[in-house]
Amino acid sequence: MVSGTLFVFVLLCGVEAGHAGKVLVLPGEYSHWHNMRAIIDALVDRNHSVTVLVSSSSPTVPHTRKERFDFNVFKVNMEKEEATAVWSDFIHLWMNDTATKYETVFNIWRVMTNYMVLATDICKGMFHNEDLLHTLRESHYDVLFSDPMMPCSDLMAQKLNIPHVLSLRATFAYTFEQLCGQLPAPPSYVPAAALQDHLTDRMSFIERVENMLLYIIHTTIFRLNMKFTFDLLYTEIWGKPTTMCETMGKADIWLIRTYWDFEYPRPLLPNFKFVGGLHCKPAKPLSKELEEFVQSSGDHGIVVFSLGSMLGNLTLERANTIASALGQIPQKVVWRYNGKTPETLASNTKLYDWIPQNDLLGHPKTKAFITHGGTNGLYEAIYHGVPMVGLPLWGDQPDNLMHMKTKGAAVVLDINTMQSKDLVDALKTVVNNPSYKESIMRLSRIHHDQPMKPLDQAVYWIEFVMRHKGAKHLRVQAHDLSWYQYHCLDVVAFLLSIVALITFLFIKTCRCLFRKCFRKTRPDGKAQKSKKE
Amino acid sequence: MVSGTLFVFVLLCGVEAGHAGKVLVLPGEYSHWHNMRAIIDALVDRNHSVTVLVSSSSPTVPHTRKERFDFNVFKVNMEKEEATAVWSDFIHLWMNDTATKYETVFNIWRVMTNYMVLATDICKGMFHNEDLLHTLRESHYDVLFSDPMMPCSDLMAQKLNIPHVLSLRATFAYTFEQLCGQLPAPPSYVPAAALQDHLTDRMSFIERVENMLLYIIHTTIFRLNMKFTFDLLYTEIWGKPTTMCETMGKADIWLIRTYWDFEYPRPLLPNFKFVGGLHCKPAKPLSKELEEFVQSSGDHGIVVFSLGSMLGNLTLERANTIASALGQIPQKVVWRYNGKTPETLASNTKLYDWIPQNDLLGHPKTKAFITHGGTNGLYEAIYHGVPMVGLPLWGDQPDNLMHMKTKGAAVVLDINTMQSKDLVDALKTVVNNPSYKESIMRLSRIHHDQPMKPLDQAVYWIEFVMRHKGAKHLRVQAHDLSWYQYHCLDVVAFLLSIVALITFLFIKTCRCLFRKCFRKTRPDGKAQKSKKE
Repeated sequence: MVSGTLFVFVLLCGVEAGHAGKVLVLPGEYSHWHNMRAIIDALVDRNHSVTVLVSSSSPTVPHTRKERFDFNVFKVNMEKEEATAVWSDFIHLWMNDTATKYETVFNIWRVMTNYMVLATDICKGMFHNEDLLHTLRESHYDVLFSDPMMPCSDLMAQKLNIPHVLSLRATFAYTFEQLCGQLPAPPSYVPAAALQDHLTDRMSFIERVENMLLYIIHTTIFRLNMKFTFDLLYTEIWGKPTTMCETMGKADIWLIRTYWDFEYPRPLLPNFKFVGGLHCKPAKPLSKELEEFVQSSGDHGIVVFSLGSMLGNLTLERANTIASALGQIPQKVVWRYNGKTPETLASNTKLYDWIPQNDLLGHPKTKAFITHGGTNGLYEAIYHGVPMVGLPLWGDQPDNLMHMKTKGAAVVLDINTMQSKDLVDALKTVVNNPSYKESIMRLSRIHHDQPMKPLDQAVYWIEFVMRHKGAKHLRVQAHDLSWYQYHCLDVVAFLLSIVALITFLFIKTCRCLFRKCFRKTRPDGKAQKSKKE
Repeated sequence: MVSGTLFVFVLLCGVEAGHAGKVLVLPGEYSHWHNMRAIIDALVDRNHSVTVLVSSSSPTVPHTRKERFDFNVFKVNMEKEEATAVWSDFIHLWMNDTATKYETVFNIWRVMTNYMVLATDICKGMFHNEDLLHTLRESHYDVLFSDPMMPCSDLMAQKLNIPHVLSLRATFAYTFEQLCGQLPAPPSYVPAAALQDHLTDRMSFIERVENMLLYIIHTTIFRLNMKFTFDLLYTEIWGKPTTMCETMGKADIWLIRTYWDFEYPRPLLPNFKFVGGLHCKPAKPLSKELEEFVQSSGDHGIVVFSLGSMLGNLTLERANTIASALGQIPQKVVWRYNGKTPETLASNTKLYDWIPQNDLLGHPKTKAFITHGGTNGLYEAIYHGVPMVGLPLWGDQPDNLMHMKTKGAAVVLDINTMQSKDLVDALKTVVNNPSYKESIMRLSRIHHDQPMKPLDQAVYWIEFVMRHKGAKHLRVQAHDLSWYQYHCLDVVAFLLSIVALITFLFIKTCRCLFRKCFRKTRPDGKAQKSKKE
């Protein structure tokens, strides 16, 4: 006999599981968009109807292109060029080589002012547009999927009263995750991502002090910044007092774009799902010309070199230093570079405006990857098991590459000060010392050996909140506590007060009894003497 | 073209994935054994060779029976009857109704003394048996899978130098998980499992004070107890200073026998995997006689009633109160009971020495489950979606049922004080008020809608540590920190000292400057006046 209740369950869930849902996406820009795009494609493959809500000023979401999903473009005051400049300023925050790390932290403040103009423009563009809101409400979406890079995206989930799935890579000192998501991050062994390049999960006392200070500084700046920017904006739009953190904290699922192949192990919460490398795919065949060049490398193989799509040109001096180094290795080099051709360029190196990076990294002849350490490229290297030479540029890249260095899969150099010899040595090390290949293969095995593939997991949890209208059973009650309640400071203060009171009463009583006894038992005048002492 | 490194990876992992491993199991007793048994069966189904290492005094592991896996029975001094008595005393620790909760906590101390005799006997039985150790070493097991209920099981993993997977249900105030596994459990919203029956993840100030005290008491007792018992034993056996926590903390994976259908959401670690309800299965057909009785209930359906296999008989007075209540409901009742037949037993109730509980709970006619709240039975009710009336008896049962009550799936009564009317009302409520059915069906949907079934997940992670020779990438560095380092108390003390020093110097300097300025600018004598003030 079939189990009755189970049967009912299967019936109910079966209908829901097969149901094609309606997904509203509020995307991030740049590499964030590329990452979300992989999830959107998977959702479309599973017959979900996807609408990407994007502002007319979006610099990188290609909303004029014909896609398998819909765009809903809302008008904002800012032009695309202006917005691009603000985003660019925001992203290049850490490109100033002369700034110290602590100056950089305070620079965030300055850039946030410009960013707030853009954010206010986008938020008001969405929420002051009654037609848009009406359309969105009438569309009855099942879930809102967003990147916090898109301002007010969490507020839209609340406005439409639908479940919310977030996608993000670690924010600085895990401020979003900690303060808005209630993720514990003990400063004693969780290094404050990501504006640092030397702290790991094994820290000396001095490093732990530094780490604690990083958390305090980041958190304070974040709190102050939010208080005078987004909290006011959210309150104005929502019509009653609220904060950005409170709104973001209502998210059902947090999809984190890393995994334990990359991360140092640390605490997580039931609604935090780690889906790093979800965009990675098996390599496709190369173009005929590129394949011929790669094959011409013989047994030495090739080195793939890219500093990402966002880097302006290197100075000619740096480009020459690099090109000279590349000429000294036996491998052939595929270099993505669109600056002036360096004079020292050797015949083993070919320059390309664009390279099929994933396909090259997955090629059997690829021996090493020279990278700036962006998360997407780094995950492609992990996926295909290619050891790295890291030339970090900005933002989270030094921290990202520190992870790879600590795990034995990369050598990291300072692009501004390195000499040709340093790069040659680094390349020879990662190619010839088998420990680097072994380490990256170990990470690759960890990456590939998960109960569910990262992309499938991302899709699973988006579909889960559609099926169950949220995932409240995974959201901790810590959201309802103030920071001092969360850390039990009120309880500790109360208990210490009681201990102090008892101790005080005990000492008072003892002293009183002692004096009485003393007087009674020693009426010979010695009590006075003792008292004087 | 196939990706080269990926191809190599698939090839390597493919071989390893298909490899039938050798699993050494050090089992728990009673319901713990039944739970592990489900995993062992699944491992055997996947062609792994399993050996269960068990002492000759084991009360419940059926080591004389012919099974699809091997038993390796080692001789200990204690007889089975003696051991059974100790286990029984240990398990019935909380059966004394007159003891308060805090007395109960201290009772653990007493029982631990007896338990230590048994534990020492088992540990020495294993580690002073050179033939056994030789055999185990020569068998080259790939993983040790154990329940901490089996003393020194973690030490055996260390001795054989093989990966270790633990299986456990929450220990009191998460002492094992927190102190040995480094699992964070903030007392502000994680109620101290499991010797309490009213704290949830939403606590008032006074409840948070109580919760904090529970954590402090449990942790202190645990630390002291371990220091003078297991730590000494482990040190003696290991031959150099060690502690039980340090040894257990080396485990690669912690399989926790609950899930978020049952638990309040709380922090976890990457190597903690929640596999609650892994023993649950679809219902099988009932025996002809039982099916006829069940069918005779018509539309009213049946109530299943079991207080577990470990309860001695109820007093006749209690049995009569219960039987009288059961006679007043329109449902038929299947009651597992082997005491004297109550005089008030009505015709709608049938007594059985044993019932096929899972098959009955999965029967479409089952409307409610009267249970003592053991985790296994409770998960069968969640699996099949049957609302409960809870009559908790001891140990973690009040806490377990509190979870179900909070989640709207159970009514809980005090079996010692309830009247017939209370039980009748409770049964009518869970059967007739649709909210109970809705709540348990919600939990059931959560239970069934996981990326991987609990049993599959347990097997997956055991196989994972076999494939990768451990899972060190999931184990937090917190294991290498002392408790004050973990909580950053040294860092906070250091920073506060600096703040105090700076403040002191600042005040001193200000005072000094103030005095100087005052004397210079006000030579009219007012300075003295001001000074007096």
